[in-house]
Formats: sequence, C-alpha cells, structure tokens
Amino acid sequence: MVANKKMVEAITSRDEDFAKWYTDIVKKAELADYSGVKGCMVIRPYGYAIWELMQADMDRRFKETGHENVYMPMFIPESLLQREKDHVEGFAPECAWVTVGGEEKLTERLAVRPTSETLFCEHYKKVIKTYRDLPKLYNQWCSVVRWEKTTRPFLRTSEFLWQEGHTMHATAEEAQEETLKMLKVYTDFYAETLAIPAVVGQKTEKEKFAGAEATYTIEPMMHNGVALQGGTSHYFGDGFAKSFGITYTGKDNQLHYPHQTSWGTSTRMIGALIMVHSDDDGLVLPPRIAPIQVVIIPVAHHKEGVLEKAEELRAMLAGKFRVKLDDSDHAPGWKFAEYEMKGVPVRVEIGPKDIEKNQCVVVRRDTREKAFVPLDELSAFVENLMETIRQDMYDRAAQNTKEKTFVATTHEEFIDTAKNHPGFIKAMWCGDSACEDQLKDETGGVKSRCIPFEEEHLSDVCVCCGKPAKHMVFWGKQY
Amino acid sequence: MVANKKMVEAITSRDEDFAKWYTDIVKKAELADYSGVKGCMVIRPYGYAIWELMQADMDRRFKETGHENVYMPMFIPESLLQREKDHVEGFAPECAWVTVGGEEKLTERLAVRPTSETLFCEHYKKVIKTYRDLPKLYNQWCSVVRWEKTTRPFLRTSEFLWQEGHTMHATAEEAQEETLKMLKVYTDFYAETLAIPAVVGQKTEKEKFAGAEATYTIEPMMHNGVALQGGTSHYFGDGFAKSFGITYTGKDNQLHYPHQTSWGTSTRMIGALIMVHSDDDGLVLPPRIAPIQVVIIPVAHHKEGVLEKAEELRAMLAGKFRVKLDDSDHAPGWKFAEYEMKGVPVRVEIGPKDIEKNQCVVVRRDTREKAFVPLDELSAFVENLMETIRQDMYDRAAQNTKEKTFVATTHEEFIDTAKNHPGFIKAMWCGDSACEDQLKDETGGVKSRCIPFEEEHLSDVCVCCGKPAKHMVFWGKQY
Repeated sequence: MVANKKMVEAITSRDEDFAKWYTDIVKKAELADYSGVKGCMVIRPYGYAIWELMQADMDRRFKETGHENVYMPMFIPESLLQREKDHVEGFAPECAWVTVGGEEKLTERLAVRPTSETLFCEHYKKVIKTYRDLPKLYNQWCSVVRWEKTTRPFLRTSEFLWQEGHTMHATAEEAQEETLKMLKVYTDFYAETLAIPAVVGQKTEKEKFAGAEATYTIEPMMHNGVALQGGTSHYFGDGFAKSFGITYTGKDNQLHYPHQTSWGTSTRMIGALIMVHSDDDGLVLPPRIAPIQVVIIPVAHHKEGVLEKAEELRAMLAGKFRVKLDDSDHAPGWKFAEYEMKGVPVRVEIGPKDIEKNQCVVVRRDTREKAFVPLDELSAFVENLMETIRQDMYDRAAQNTKEKTFVATTHEEFIDTAKNHPGFIKAMWCGDSACEDQLKDETGGVKSRCIPFEEEHLSDVCVCCGKPAKHMVFWGKQY
Repeated sequence: MVANKKMVEAITSRDEDFAKWYTDIVKKAELADYSGVKGCMVIRPYGYAIWELMQADMDRRFKETGHENVYMPMFIPESLLQREKDHVEGFAPECAWVTVGGEEKLTERLAVRPTSETLFCEHYKKVIKTYRDLPKLYNQWCSVVRWEKTTRPFLRTSEFLWQEGHTMHATAEEAQEETLKMLKVYTDFYAETLAIPAVVGQKTEKEKFAGAEATYTIEPMMHNGVALQGGTSHYFGDGFAKSFGITYTGKDNQLHYPHQTSWGTSTRMIGALIMVHSDDDGLVLPPRIAPIQVVIIPVAHHKEGVLEKAEELRAMLAGKFRVKLDDSDHAPGWKFAEYEMKGVPVRVEIGPKDIEKNQCVVVRRDTREKAFVPLDELSAFVENLMETIRQDMYDRAAQNTKEKTFVATTHEEFIDTAKNHPGFIKAMWCGDSACEDQLKDETGGVKSRCIPFEEEHLSDVCVCCGKPAKHMVFWGKQY
C-alpha cells in the first residue's frame, strides 16, 4: 500500500494529532466544508449521502415503533420559550434571535429553534383532548441552531441536522417505557448499522437535559478514549404539560396531565463514524451506511475485454449492493488510495490475468485482507463479507473501549488514571454534584458520562469525598 | 352517501366559498394547523406523509438525472446576499434577520435563507477549479423563509419546505439544457405522480426570478380557474459566477466563467393537490402519493369471521399497496366519511354477505363508482384501478383546464373575459411590461403566466396596446 499512499497527499497520522487527523478526513473524504457563516458547515454530497442512509435506517426504526413524522415551525416566540423555567434557562443563552422580519422590527423576538419541546407542547395542547388521542408519537427531521463559540465539523456547529422525537402518553409508566424504548432503538442502530458499541445509562442530575426529569444517554468511546454523547432520550414527567396547560379527559372522565418524552440524534454521528473506525488512510465506513459499498477497479483497463468484464461484475452486483465502477483514466493505484480515503468497504480488482483465471481480487477496506474469488461466487462472497466487516468493526471498537476502560477506587487512583490513561473510568459516587464539579476541575474536564443500567459494586464509598456511595458511574472527557 | 355525510361535520361547499372550502380541507383532513408563530404552519402527520411520498418520488427523479443532495447553512451574511445586485433587491425586503446570537449583538446581520443561490456560489467558488469539476449537479431539501403579510397553509407561508437545485456547467448550452430538463422533470412529476396537467413555458422579463436571465415555469390551473406557480427553473448565465468570481480552467487552458441554473418546488404542491382534485367530501389523492392507498372496512365486524377475512385481505394487499384495516368500533358510515375526507383512493368493504359470495365491495374515492370483486381477483383489480384513477383524475383536471381556457383577440374581449370567466386567457402581447401592468390593473390581478413553448398565432397585434405582437401569452390570476 505504501506506493499507493504516496500518490495522494497523506493525511495527518491519527496517533500524532487526533484533532488534525479528524479534520483532514472531513476534508479529504469530502464530507463537509467550512462556510462563510461562522460556525456553520456545508455538508458535501458524500457526507450528505451518509446522512441520508442513516436517516433512512433510523426512520424505518421509528416508523416500525409507531412514530409519525411532522414539521414544526423553525421559529419560537420568546414568550413561548419562556413558558418552562428550566428549559429557557438552559437554551436561551445559546439562541440565535430574529428581530427583524420583512424590513420591520418585530414586536417579539423569535428564537431559531435550538430544540422544539415548546412548539410540540403548543401543538399538543390543541390536538390532545381525551385518552383516545394518546399516545402521540411524533418525530421531526430538521436543523436546529445553538450558538457556539468554538466549532468543529459534525461535532459542534452552530447549526446542525438532527431528528427530535416528541411524545405524549397517558401515564408516567408509558412515557418512561417510551424513553427507554427509544434509547434501545438508538443503541441497536449504533450497533447494527454504525458498528459502534456504547455505554448506555442515565445522566446525573447535573448533566441532564434542561427541563427533563431524567435523561438517558448512549456514550460511544472514540478511538482516542474520549466520549461522544451519541444520542439522548428524556423523560419529562408532566412538567411541560403543566406549564403549557395540556390536559386530557381520562377513561374516568377526570382531567389529567399527559406525560412526555423527547429523544434526539444528530449529524454528529458522522463524527463518531470517523473517530471510532477510521485510520491513517482515511475514512472506514460500516457497509450499511456506505454510499458506495463496492468499488470495481479495472486493472490494465485498456486491454481487450477488461472493461466489459468489469461492467459485467458491476451489473451482477448492482441489484444487491451500492456499486461503482471507476473506469476513469486515473492509475489503479490512485484509485485504490482514493476509495480508501472515502472508506468504501470492499474493492474488487479485475485485470487480464484475473479474467484468464475466471476470478477477481476482493480487498476489505477495514483490514486490507485480500482474497481471490471465482467470479461466479463473487456476489455471495461479498454478501457474507459485508456482515463480517460490520461485525469485525464492531468487535474492534468494543475491544478498544474495553482496553481503555479503567477502574478507580480511590481519589488518587482516579486523578492518576484521568491524567495518564485516556478513556472511561468506572468509579463509585455519592450522588452529590459537588463531587462531579471537583473531579472535573481536578482532571481538566473529566465528567460523569452516565450511571449504567447494570452497576457494579466497586467499593462502598464515593471516589471523591469518601462518603457512602450511591452509584457506580462511568466518567470521561467528551467532545 | 348522504347518510354518511351527515355523520361528520360537513365542510364548506367548493362552489360556495372556495377559500373556506380549502382551509376546511386542510383542517379536517388533518394536513396542517396554524402555529403561534405568525405565518408559520405545523405540518401534521398526514400532511407530512404526503410530502414524504412527494419527496421520495422527486428525489428518485433527481438522482436518476445525476443530481446529488447537499446541505448548506440556513444563514446568509448580509454582505453575501448583496453580492448579486438584482438578487438582493428581489429578496432582501422579505428576509427574516438574525441580529443576536448567543446573547451578543452580531457585527453583521444574517438573513434566514429565502433561497440559497449565494451560498451555493460561495461553495462552488471553492470546489470548481477545472473543466473536470463540471458539471456540478446539486440539490438541497430544506426550509426557507420569506416574510409574508397574509398567509394561507401550503400556499403562502413565511416558512415553507422545498427543494432547490443549483447546478454549474461549462457552457451556456449545457446550462440551458439543464434548465429545461428539470422543468421536464417537474412536468412529468406533476402528470405522472400528482395527476395534474399544466401549462409550461417561459416567464416574461417582468415575472422572472431576481437575478435570472430566464425563468421557466409550470402553471397548473386550480379547479376555480386560478393558476398556481407550481415550480420554476431558472437559467442564470454567468451573472452570479462573475459576481462571485467563480472561474474554471477549460480544456483550452484558459479561464472561463461557468454557467448556472437553479430550480425549485415546494410544499405548495400539497395546496395544488387540494385545489385541483378535491371535492365537497374532502381530499381526493392520486394513488402514488396517498399515505393510505387502500382502506379496508369490515361491515358488521362483530359477526364471526368478518375481522379474520378483513385481516386476510389486508395481508394479501399489504405487499403491493399502502393498506390500512380500520377495525375500530366506529360505525362503517362514519369510517366511510372519515377516509373520504382523507382522500384515500380505494375503499374495500367486506361483510358477512360478501364473505358468503366470496367477494368484496370496492369503491373509488374520485368517482364513488362501486364494484363487486371476487376475492381472488382483488389484488389485480386494485392494481389496475390505481392507474385508472390516476389517469381519470388527470383527464378531469385537463378537461377543466381546457374548459376554462379562453382566447381574447381584442382589449375589450380580454377585459370582459377576465371579469366574467375565471381561468386562463390566451392573448397576443407586444413584449412591453407596461402592457402587463395595464392589464393587471384593469382586471384586478390578471398577470402573464408564461409564454408557452408552442405559441399559437391568434392575431397580429398586442391585445393591450395594438402594437405588433411578439408572443402569445397565457394570462391569469394566481395564488
């Protein structure tokens, strides 16, 4: 591969400078570009194609679980945003505000939506009358804006694309069940489609969503040991319903407040794909969301019969996979490097000698393993390989997470691990946010990721203050 | 049907009050609702499902013609919007402006995009270097904002959803070809998917898009004779390229300006669906974009075997169509009216007597025609019926357009027709926008719709000023 790599401008090495390696991949794989608008990015065709595949997969999961898509306005009047106290405190400071419309100063400022709980509540107030109207299981695909000072493509931008589910239920139990059900949908999507394992659990009081009673989170670990908050699912109880005066008549003929959830994931999942799977040759994509799953590269393609055979293979695979035949005049080596940069999971090479032997060469992007495959077995071979690649990618990421997850039972051990071993730390915690603040200060940013659903008993006392422990917590730095 | 209609609250009659009939359908069919944000609407699940089906169909057509989706920022810095003179004059007056971000006053105002030519140009300047980078065939699905004083759901709202294609080409010829190709994609989509015929042609100088050299338009006629601008395709020449300094190195090794197009359609197509096809019982949807294509309604569904047979039919049709079995406790008559309101193209009724005869009742929404169909022929029958319905809907709309299209060869005839016969007027025109202004004033809003590609020679002189005629123009009022 060395010869090929020299043919394209090399990217920064992952081990040398993780941040620069990341932005190099974003740029060289043509996923996104900076725009003239501070903090906003242009999602380029290849990056957007990945997002479309993610959307289609998630949208199917949402619909299978009974959710319907809607579209709410992108503006929130200031008075509407203020209706729920904790919520406005959490979001107002990072809003973009429209103050002029059609050349006239507005009598009330409009926030460009940072999230849409308030808009959904306003609508739910109109359409929920009786228990027959429940549950309401709505989702929205849109862009939202949260003003950011320092930004990085996909990970933190002032505008980003996302989906936000907003549901209303007759009882607290049903809403809690929904909150966890959607966390499970996210976890399955990450594992099955993105080939990304993750720690899942509940956020602490300090880290939960503004206005929520409980926030659940999926926290995959990036290759360098840093966490990414990969998706969140919130249980609101009837707090918003009370603030907005949403009631329904129950079977008992009495008025009740419905119980609410919301849950969201965003284009930062593309950032996770890069930081979990990719390497010094560029992007490595799991097959299900790869815009090109198989690239066919003819070798010595001016020789008689080569292009015809390559086209035959393309036609053979096209019904089952997203296939591209690159018959351009670039040298094969240049093409190899180009599609490695783009993370195409499988490369098929076919040249005169292969044709003589009625075979082709199949190369995996993730491991560079090479196989000589009889042409009549190619389709079945590739089909199996896709699942193998996905599983292997998942397993490697799980192994990385395992290797970079540490246990700390004393304060000293915690600080030492945080300083010297990038990754997650499992440690006991008393439940007091003062300890979270202290640990964050002492470590330069290690925060509680979540309380996992299955806690281990590591010791009896809080790793910070020594008081009796309430929970085992995963700790780590985050993007 | 009379008995059924009495069971649900009737909507305003189309002939009595077209505007109220329209908003009644929007509300009763649960397509959209008003929001607390002035001029913005909530697109409800049923309305959004129609939009998703439209998107999927159009997106397939765009991709088949080589286009790729991207996402540009939703904000445009004021200086960027001002780069092209005509463009900013056209759009700045109707922009919403963000002036505060993250609690700080911005040094430069940001327009919420009313359209994205300027953002695409800024990006194209970065990614177009040589002739090998051309053409660039990009499309974007997003929402845009144009501040409106008076609004109506789907037809005119301050925020609306749309797609905007933006392409760059090496030569003027290629760009012109693209402009017309995409107009044809729109025309085909209207005819094949929406079952809506339309007049197509070129906009006059006065009516063209701000900054374009030429604007082409598709103008379907609504049931009441009023036009809806259904989609536009613009040829920009190299005007924006010059303003933005976008150049490419040609095969001749010289610098050239690329040539540009843009084209767009929006959620107002849902408005067209209502106003072209629907009737006093509610929405009438063409099968391809109907969220529910077939509704199965069991009659006397507590009788033994009825629900089982209904479920059997559902399962039989489910692979081919979007099917819903309504086994709720509402009376069949209530259900009939409900799914008529929602415009479901085909209703299948099955009761004990039908089961005895091994048949079911199939009712078309558009004509109310009823057929008794043997159960083993149902799937094939419905498949044929779908295409028949689409064709009949198209033909009826074409007939309406024909009946409401008039010819005027004198000024008096034009004014008289405009006043007494709602619809399109075909009339000759000298090419002077002063005549367009005069005719509009004299008729209370009749404007030139377009110069069709195939002009008829109706007379030698302009219907307004009597000077020599240059073109035959379609005229009419518009939404």
